[in-house]
Amino acid sequence: MANGGLLDQLKFDSSGLIPLIVQDSVNGQVLMMAFMNRAALEKTLDTGKVHTYSRSRGRLALKGESSGHFQHVKKVLTDCDRDVVLIQVVQDVAACHEGYRSCFFREYNDGDQWKTIAEKQFDPQKVYSK
Amino acid sequence: MANGGLLDQLKFDSSGLIPLIVQDSVNGQVLMMAFMNRAALEKTLDTGKVHTYSRSRGRLALKGESSGHFQHVKKVLTDCDRDVVLIQVVQDVAACHEGYRSCFFREYNDGDQWKTIAEKQFDPQKVYSK
Repeated sequence: MANGGLLDQLKFDSSGLIPLIVQDSVNGQVLMMAFMNRAALEKTLDTGKVHTYSRSRGRLALKGESSGHFQHVKKVLTDCDRDVVLIQVVQDVAACHEGYRSCFFREYNDGDQWKTIAEKQFDPQKVYSK
Repeated sequence: MANGGLLDQLKFDSSGLIPLIVQDSVNGQVLMMAFMNRAALEKTLDTGKVHTYSRSRGRLALKGESSGHFQHVKKVLTDCDRDVVLIQVVQDVAACHEGYRSCFFREYNDGDQWKTIAEKQFDPQKVYSK
């Protein structure tokens, strides 16, 4: 069971959500940003796998439920204001639905497009059409 | 001058804001989360120092303007959806107004309080009363 007393100390916003940053516990790479509601955080703590609240789908979602690329929780942190959650994880394969290890694969530069700075770890067409 | 074409490709929310994650470029530590509007991002790119949009103060703010602890921009990234900005920085002294290097100094545990897992780098009372 998640420690409800500590969850009571978090500041969820008026929609009941709190921003989540997911970081690779091995190399420190920031993998993604998402949102959680209290149920997603409880489920994450109880299962040891990251769950988010998907605003587009309007429901709780197990990260990796389609791809099989789960995020295994190592450490859960919050910030000074207790209004952001940072979870350090061991990432299976890759976090990004576009096939990259991290969602942050685009770098600012002087060109006319954000520059892709990473290599794909999997082919999204193959993984998501299973 | 900031590259306006690339900024046009970002998705600011209905309030004109985009979430910002700041990460230490040296050791990968996640330092803080904040929000930017377009002006804050332009100012950040033009000066090389992180600026945020302070929702509580309702204005653009230079990170470190009170403490003198600036964040020097090394790399600016965005994610797959182009709706989050990740900036890797060299951090002067510490990022958190409570004196810690990172705002994420509280760890989830079985106790009745989030556990402080870091040491203060400065005394906020001395720094902010200058």
